[in-house]
Amino acid sequence: MLELDFHPTGHHFLQIPGPSPVPDRILRAMSMPTIDHRGPEFGALGLRVLKGVAEVFQTKHPVVIYPASGTGAWEAALANTMSAGDDVLMYETGHFAALWHRMATRLGLRAERIGLPGVEGWRRGVQAHLIEERLAADREHAIKAVCVVHNETSTGATSDILAVRRAIDAAKHPALLMVDSISGLASAEYRHDEWGADVTIAGSQKGLMLPPGISFNALSPRAIEASRFAKLPKSFWAWDEMMEANRTGYFPYTPATNLLYGLAESCDMLLDDTHGGLAGAFARHRRWGEAVRAAVAAWGLETQCVEPQSHSPVLTGVVMPPGVDADRVRKLIHERFDLSLGTGLGKVKGRMFRIGHLGNCNDLTLVAALGGCEMGLKLAGVKLAASGVQAAMAHFAEHPLPLHAGAAPRRAASE
Amino acid sequence: MLELDFHPTGHHFLQIPGPSPVPDRILRAMSMPTIDHRGPEFGALGLRVLKGVAEVFQTKHPVVIYPASGTGAWEAALANTMSAGDDVLMYETGHFAALWHRMATRLGLRAERIGLPGVEGWRRGVQAHLIEERLAADREHAIKAVCVVHNETSTGATSDILAVRRAIDAAKHPALLMVDSISGLASAEYRHDEWGADVTIAGSQKGLMLPPGISFNALSPRAIEASRFAKLPKSFWAWDEMMEANRTGYFPYTPATNLLYGLAESCDMLLDDTHGGLAGAFARHRRWGEAVRAAVAAWGLETQCVEPQSHSPVLTGVVMPPGVDADRVRKLIHERFDLSLGTGLGKVKGRMFRIGHLGNCNDLTLVAALGGCEMGLKLAGVKLAASGVQAAMAHFAEHPLPLHAGAAPRRAASE
Amino acid sequence: MLELDFHPTGHHFLQIPGPSPVPDRILRAMSMPTIDHRGPEFGALGLRVLKGVAEVFQTKHPVVIYPASGTGAWEAALANTMSAGDDVLMYETGHFAALWHRMATRLGLRAERIGLPGVEGWRRGVQAHLIEERLAADREHAIKAVCVVHNETSTGATSDILAVRRAIDAAKHPALLMVDSISGLASAEYRHDEWGADVTIAGSQKGLMLPPGISFNALSPRAIEASRFAKLPKSFWAWDEMMEANRTGYFPYTPATNLLYGLAESCDMLLDDTHGGLAGAFARHRRWGEAVRAAVAAWGLETQCVEPQSHSPVLTGVVMPPGVDADRVRKLIHERFDLSLGTGLGKVKGRMFRIGHLGNCNDLTLVAALGGCEMGLKLAGVKLAASGVQAAMAHFAEHPLPLHAGAAPRRAASE
Amino acid sequence: MLELDFHPTGHHFLQIPGPSPVPDRILRAMSMPTIDHRGPEFGALGLRVLKGVAEVFQTKHPVVIYPASGTGAWEAALANTMSAGDDVLMYETGHFAALWHRMATRLGLRAERIGLPGVEGWRRGVQAHLIEERLAADREHAIKAVCVVHNETSTGATSDILAVRRAIDAAKHPALLMVDSISGLASAEYRHDEWGADVTIAGSQKGLMLPPGISFNALSPRAIEASRFAKLPKSFWAWDEMMEANRTGYFPYTPATNLLYGLAESCDMLLDDTHGGLAGAFARHRRWGEAVRAAVAAWGLETQCVEPQSHSPVLTGVVMPPGVDADRVRKLIHERFDLSLGTGLGKVKGRMFRIGHLGNCNDLTLVAALGGCEMGLKLAGVKLAASGVQAAMAHFAEHPLPLHAGAAPRRAASE
Repeated sequence: MLELDFHPTGHHFLQIPGPSPVPDRILRAMSMPTIDHRGPEFGALGLRVLKGVAEVFQTKHPVVIYPASGTGAWEAALANTMSAGDDVLMYETGHFAALWHRMATRLGLRAERIGLPGVEGWRRGVQAHLIEERLAADREHAIKAVCVVHNETSTGATSDILAVRRAIDAAKHPALLMVDSISGLASAEYRHDEWGADVTIAGSQKGLMLPPGISFNALSPRAIEASRFAKLPKSFWAWDEMMEANRTGYFPYTPATNLLYGLAESCDMLLDDTHGGLAGAFARHRRWGEAVRAAVAAWGLETQCVEPQSHSPVLTGVVMPPGVDADRVRKLIHERFDLSLGTGLGKVKGRMFRIGHLGNCNDLTLVAALGGCEMGLKLAGVKLAASGVQAAMAHFAEHPLPLHAGAAPRRAASE
Repeated sequence: MLELDFHPTGHHFLQIPGPSPVPDRILRAMSMPTIDHRGPEFGALGLRVLKGVAEVFQTKHPVVIYPASGTGAWEAALANTMSAGDDVLMYETGHFAALWHRMATRLGLRAERIGLPGVEGWRRGVQAHLIEERLAADREHAIKAVCVVHNETSTGATSDILAVRRAIDAAKHPALLMVDSISGLASAEYRHDEWGADVTIAGSQKGLMLPPGISFNALSPRAIEASRFAKLPKSFWAWDEMMEANRTGYFPYTPATNLLYGLAESCDMLLDDTHGGLAGAFARHRRWGEAVRAAVAAWGLETQCVEPQSHSPVLTGVVMPPGVDADRVRKLIHERFDLSLGTGLGKVKGRMFRIGHLGNCNDLTLVAALGGCEMGLKLAGVKLAASGVQAAMAHFAEHPLPLHAGAAPRRAASE
Repeated sequence: MLELDFHPTGHHFLQIPGPSPVPDRILRAMSMPTIDHRGPEFGALGLRVLKGVAEVFQTKHPVVIYPASGTGAWEAALANTMSAGDDVLMYETGHFAALWHRMATRLGLRAERIGLPGVEGWRRGVQAHLIEERLAADREHAIKAVCVVHNETSTGATSDILAVRRAIDAAKHPALLMVDSISGLASAEYRHDEWGADVTIAGSQKGLMLPPGISFNALSPRAIEASRFAKLPKSFWAWDEMMEANRTGYFPYTPATNLLYGLAESCDMLLDDTHGGLAGAFARHRRWGEAVRAAVAAWGLETQCVEPQSHSPVLTGVVMPPGVDADRVRKLIHERFDLSLGTGLGKVKGRMFRIGHLGNCNDLTLVAALGGCEMGLKLAGVKLAASGVQAAMAHFAEHPLPLHAGAAPRRAASE
Repeated sequence: MLELDFHPTGHHFLQIPGPSPVPDRILRAMSMPTIDHRGPEFGALGLRVLKGVAEVFQTKHPVVIYPASGTGAWEAALANTMSAGDDVLMYETGHFAALWHRMATRLGLRAERIGLPGVEGWRRGVQAHLIEERLAADREHAIKAVCVVHNETSTGATSDILAVRRAIDAAKHPALLMVDSISGLASAEYRHDEWGADVTIAGSQKGLMLPPGISFNALSPRAIEASRFAKLPKSFWAWDEMMEANRTGYFPYTPATNLLYGLAESCDMLLDDTHGGLAGAFARHRRWGEAVRAAVAAWGLETQCVEPQSHSPVLTGVVMPPGVDADRVRKLIHERFDLSLGTGLGKVKGRMFRIGHLGNCNDLTLVAALGGCEMGLKLAGVKLAASGVQAAMAHFAEHPLPLHAGAAPRRAASE
């Protein structure tokens, strides 16, 4: 068997903003034997996960589950709704927004970038008024879709999706609203129906706490209507056959059965009232983000995101002082302390690293992760103003988790 | 946790032609913690599985691994090599060949079906001379690709791929040869390079003994060259970025890490000399197929495949006598004996069922499966000429597994 | 990691009368992280398994769980109730009864063997009248305990425990009734309270479907009373501290926590009404035993047990014709067909082999096991009168599992 | 399935001095199917684990493996070497030494306690000169054994076993030296042969990183010789049959097969040269202990052990200031921070808690554990002089793990 024992003993701290650590409960669920995906047991499984994941998206409309990773779900959103040469407006908040823009171009769309210039745009959420202005100028309604990233994984900035919807509406523009919430779903509050998203894209390996391998498109009736006329070639990604087969809990082609076992478990965990349900999950992530930012502030370092209202509850980008190579710091931390941190991507490569605080996480795990960062930064010669670990511990101690978010440990194993 | 205990106790016999039963060794490997797919451990994993799977395809050229199920790999083969409106010649050997044709049409290709008429074509392998004749008639070389299915999962007929290559060459035609070996790879002999395939498509959930969720395109230099000029939009499926990233063992977007753990284990198992390596695996499957066909013959029933040289080593289609609903028989067997058999698909729905004999299988498992069929057929009122179980046991007893195929049990646990 | 791949592929058929195959559900449960056995979660676990296992013993009185294998529970039963030099009457039904006798002697007791002479006693259950006669002769009540084996694992004979209780009562004798139901519990009907057992000994690796490692003493008020005066030295095995700590679900020393996780799952499975609860389990085992005996009869071979009312539902001993070495047959079957059968023990070594049909078993698994035996016997040159596999299949087909024993497959995964 | 989700998400920090966290590698190994313990694969397994564990004990003599928890191995050591009424000298270093004394008394031995008076003796290792003096006074050599605890789990004091051996020799006394290294083995340096121990007792759930359920007696030729004349009744614990069966890798009664799978994996991990082998493991534990003691000193609190040379590398006892209930602090920490600490036992109940730092541990895990303690102590109103977390981090940063102890991460997954 493969050996993954790079370090001698103990728990590896995987604090990247996804893939996030998979709970043992989910790994166990995924180890159940693969069943016949056309047999009688499968339909029950399919209906269960389709219902569960719709609750997580907070939607009453169909959610399509692909046996493919998140990048595929980006392609699916475009392939089902667009035709060759269509205009799409893509707001650049960071590296993943830029990659999505690149994909749209490769697929033959006229993808227009919008956003603040240079690195500045990578330190903030979407500025909805820019979208409103651009759409208002598009008198002929050539723009078919507005694409935004809910939680920009490369920077740690979360955007106000409801504000984007209002901007589109204020411009009285019919463009579809497509949202990448790959790293936001199930960690940062998200309301597909209420916020008026037409397609929301998500993946398994972030807030859902699964290994990578399945991904999602949550749909709106307008998106479904648009898919009837869109002309980009599509077959594997086609919504129509998926929605048809899903009615009875089945899929038009072989699904990723074992990941669906994991998804059933993940939904059970996220929707479990004992720990506050979805609201509890959101509260936990907010609090983790606050503590990590308290640490960064204590160190005297900057966070990549500079807009107070846009700080991500999922990850925090930590900017290095001039002259410090962030990747050298990360490498030192990985080798000395068995802690994986996220690298800086694209425009900010080498200038920052990212601390993931999502999914199957808790206070002490973050104390450990911040401890690893603090020791590593010092060993790398970075001058720190004060102890970030102390600041985070003070935050945790002074801000107990609200009751509804799982503060009251349940009597486990007792029923 | 999800409960999969449809039946009270014991091992469920999953004898469909895929997904095939996943060995515990692979389930355990897949339960290792997901790692950072941009970290130092991952590159070593990536190089290892890319090398291993190329050995299984018997190719020296690149193999692309998608974090998507097999249907996606069909789409990838076409999207990377074709342009809108291109002609492709698709030989129909059964339901999956027909589905691939349907996909090609949805993707905007001019997909021409070829093959024997009616159900007759579904009882044989590819008739290579028909391809040669058709290509010879295509003077302008409008046809860009010939698409065939190596092992037709819906019928149990295996085609002679080398004969198809020779037919194309005999016609002096430049069309690419695309082969679906989704249910053939690692069970039925297959030589990507030697047989001159340009793209071979495969999936994880058959002979590789993994859960569904990853799939493959094995390439030829000509296919790679064609991909530089093909114009179908492609991004997720694009070979170029994959091949580039794969050089160091990484992937351009998030891979299905835990399935790659399983793939490393699967390659170790298949290539293990102690059990005869790939040749051993092929010999085991051939022998299982012979025993199952001996059983069907003893029952006095017909196999779906009627060409002696085309009988599949992977699965056997069993044709019901007139008036017997194959799906009613399957349902009775599932409920009474905890045995899953494959349903008849498309043109032969209700007329036949399929027994899978692939992957993590052995003699006694097939004795059990044939026992379940025999009891179920009798309970369903089907008159049987003799005992198929006896015939299969006679075959197994009289034909010990050749030494190179794993006949000599190794001293396990001893080193 | 250790490799257990003696054979190239497929499921190993472990058809020995214990350890029995462990269901994946239980292996998964056992893979949960070990917890603090003095922490708040543990007490709930402890109470749950103590309650569950008492239901399986059908007792209202305490059951003691040892972190030790079954042989230890034999010692515990004696160490808690006896004093050096005490007389105990031990009925020899086979090898395990003989081993228990040997242990009693080693512990300093005057252990008297009783039973039919020679091998004859190893082909029947306990003859209760012999016990009655012996006790009646013991006017001074020197005999402190009568020890019998409920299901003799070495022969396949089950004894009538209620008859033994009645024999003791008929003799108006105060001896304790100690019963080894190591291989009987949860497979063969057993009623600790109703049948008047004073101590029942059991282990984890048979009908409870767990790996070996924990074992049990079910107690009666009289046994507890006796333990207050017994003088054999005891500490690890002492009931008093166990019963005291168990009141709150804890243990006086470190318990085998992960096996207790498995026990919780095992009790859930056995007591699950959907599959008929305990009565369902007993019915399944009876039916399996009938089918296996039908096979042995068809082969023209003898079963080791010759008393119709004593045939074990757990295992069947198959006697070889003169001149055939049973262990050579077993070895051939193991190497050729990946099937483990039980060896003949003690007086019958080499003369018989044992087929286990217990726990996590089902009809097709037994068809496979009988198929392996039939092929192996023929290859070993044993002349068989007819096909045992056919006979067993006829039995299974004609005798559907009663509804209450799990015949109606439940809609799994659906809630 | 049982639910162990007392807290909403994340990794539970089990920092008690055993059971210690079980590595996933070992849990996976333990999930392999139980095999026939009389079959050909088992002998190879048995020989492998018997060899491996002897290397861990650093002995050339037999090691007996019991399918029972550590308390049983205490009993085994006495039952095999002593006769009723024999004198044994038991040095009291803490609660576990006291429990062993209690067991000896229950087994009918004349167990004499020796040690410093009151709680003072619970803050130090064995004072070997006291043993020498006592033995010198025993002119008739009535004392048959000297019993000491190598690493006292209740206090965090490690004793100098070689000094005890020298004391016995200096007194020219023939008493056997029996050592409980249940919580020391594989974490604190231990040399069974070189230090002249006659019986060393150990368990699985500490440095060996297994769940509880198997335990050990390492023997010397003198102990084996003594067992031939010892008269305490013994059967389950008897060495003679064990040693006989072990010669071929088998056991006289059913072993705890799945824990033996785990033991094979554990020995592979501990003896792996890449991470420094046993010496590496000892160095890791020493360094962890130093860091934890640095934290306690920074807090301005006392450790329970007050002898510099006796500080345990396995656990640290932290003494509460007067008036603070240690168990209330532990409970608060468990509920708020998902961290399990060891309770004070016996004489020091409520006065101290214990931090385990053993087995599958690493630097960041201890930073987390110390962080949880620090937050919890403050929340409980304990005044701390300074940050213990900072002190521990300073220690870790300034004292990199020596190369031979696993400092150089290996290129995993690469071969």
